Amino acid sequence: MGEFDIIREVFAPLAADADGAFGLGDDAALIDNGPFVVTKDAIVAGVHFLPKDPYDLVARKLMRVNLSDLAAKGARPIGYLLACVWPAGVKREQIELFARGLNEDQGRFRVSLFGGDTTAHLQKTGPAVFTATFFGAPPRQGVTARVGAQAGDDLYVTGVIGDAGLGLKALRREEKFTTVDKASLAMRYHLPEPRLSIGAAIAGFATAAIDVSDGLIADAGHLARASGLRAEIDAVSIPRSTAAGAWVARQQNRWKALADVASFGDDYEILFTAPSAMRRSVTVAAKAAKTEVSRIGSMTRGEGAALLDENGREIAVRSAGFDHLKG
Amino acid sequence: MGEFDIIREVFAPLAADADGAFGLGDDAALIDNGPFVVTKDAIVAGVHFLPKDPYDLVARKLMRVNLSDLAAKGARPIGYLLACVWPAGVKREQIELFARGLNEDQGRFRVSLFGGDTTAHLQKTGPAVFTATFFGAPPRQGVTARVGAQAGDDLYVTGVIGDAGLGLKALRREEKFTTVDKASLAMRYHLPEPRLSIGAAIAGFATAAIDVSDGLIADAGHLARASGLRAEIDAVSIPRSTAAGAWVARQQNRWKALADVASFGDDYEILFTAPSAMRRSVTVAAKAAKTEVSRIGSMTRGEGAALLDENGREIAVRSAGFDHLKG
Repeated sequence: MGEFDIIREVFAPLAADADGAFGLGDDAALIDNGPFVVTKDAIVAGVHFLPKDPYDLVARKLMRVNLSDLAAKGARPIGYLLACVWPAGVKREQIELFARGLNEDQGRFRVSLFGGDTTAHLQKTGPAVFTATFFGAPPRQGVTARVGAQAGDDLYVTGVIGDAGLGLKALRREEKFTTVDKASLAMRYHLPEPRLSIGAAIAGFATAAIDVSDGLIADAGHLARASGLRAEIDAVSIPRSTAAGAWVARQQNRWKALADVASFGDDYEILFTAPSAMRRSVTVAAKAAKTEVSRIGSMTRGEGAALLDENGREIAVRSAGFDHLKG
Repeated sequence: MGEFDIIREVFAPLAADADGAFGLGDDAALIDNGPFVVTKDAIVAGVHFLPKDPYDLVARKLMRVNLSDLAAKGARPIGYLLACVWPAGVKREQIELFARGLNEDQGRFRVSLFGGDTTAHLQKTGPAVFTATFFGAPPRQGVTARVGAQAGDDLYVTGVIGDAGLGLKALRREEKFTTVDKASLAMRYHLPEPRLSIGAAIAGFATAAIDVSDGLIADAGHLARASGLRAEIDAVSIPRSTAAGAWVARQQNRWKALADVASFGDDYEILFTAPSAMRRSVTVAAKAAKTEVSRIGSMTRGEGAALLDENGREIAVRSAGFDHLKG
């Protein structure tokens, strides 16, 4: 198996719909017109996925963490470039499995492969690294930036929070769950759902948005800091799945458990702000996008992000989320 | 040192000229209009650079291997996205050194940072991986594709071949060189020169082009295969530096030495084809671009690439170049 056979036989079919990709037979691709929303995220074995995760799920996670960035901007995905750094001695079957994952989500999200690079570690212990650069079309109303929230804005989040983090704990056997809960939590870790429909639906009136990857509190802090504000989150209003709710109920300290849920990360939900005059618009957008949206707090003068208990007192949070340079 | 401080303090200044980069304070960047030529290459410690190479040189090599792809297409570089996967426990000084390298070549090649991702291995032995996605403006005459050579076309290469491979041998102490030769060869390994001027100058009449990264013979094979032809290279006409010429002269078997030079890779010169009626245009373009261009062979009916001795007999070549999945 050689690099060039793999590109021709395994990856080129994924570029069949992209005219400017030259069937992956060139050093570069030609993409038409713009403007584009572009984003580039890397995922690393042992950091963003488990080294033994099946490669089709890894490929789909790579796509989805990038698509999630486009979703937060309200952009419609178009296509992507891919760079793979495989472990030394990777088998063709593993690369084919990865490509099957890409193919499945290409169909689901209507994107094409434009080009990229595939290589392998020479060092035996080198962990797999995958990066993608995604291109999207900005929404007609203009992209929802991270900056733009106003004091007094409501703070919303899509879907549920905490499942992916609990899924990782389940996969690592750090926590016990029922078989059904484990399966659903693990799936949320492996396959986040990029919130493209709701991201596009709120583009007209959301004042700022970010996708939740580092943890709800950490990303609320990023959102707040971008606009020189403070994000206050009501802990009890954070949306949870049945499985996560059951886990919280099993913990001795309920507030600590809620703080954990809000710190795990990997949720890939959209956290956004909107003026309180727009509550009806949020409800309509959520319905149109068939996506749950929860109002979880508000933006105030101040700095950073705080998790509040039912009496409005700040809950201590051990970690403000995952910092990839600290590990 | 945290991920977000590093982005704000070290990388954000590199994006100061790019309006749509939002000062790297967003999940995505907005880029205007198009069309774009896009390319994405990864470099890996232990594969594409030496683990002890200074990070400013690594950063500049990352930029240059990508810029070289744009050069082969005749495109004018505009900007790039960056993803860094650092070794566990990376020091802030190392990241700053990397950013200084980026900054230096951003000035030289007039490109801006649009955005990206920075993360680190959790596994102690994880080799550093860097990938960049470069955006270029296609030349008015249209991009020079890899496909398009005609039987009878001349085959040309820019600059000199073999220096980078010998530089790597010098750095690894596999071969001895004079101090002066070692320095110049090592610099060619660390800092390839993307041939942007000549790439743009030939865009009107070159029928096909590729940059030489896997080795002259291997990449001639890729160029030939794209058009269903055979590339024939006259070994003695391959341009060599004084240092590489001296190395060839020291080898017992001259033809084997020439085959080695044509197989090392990492040259990042442009290999291109043009009709023989265009020889004068090639000369004019070379002069305008202040770049040496050598005619080294021609395209014929057949398949693959062959290195010929002065009597037109094929020279045996051990390896057809570097295959990144075989190592």
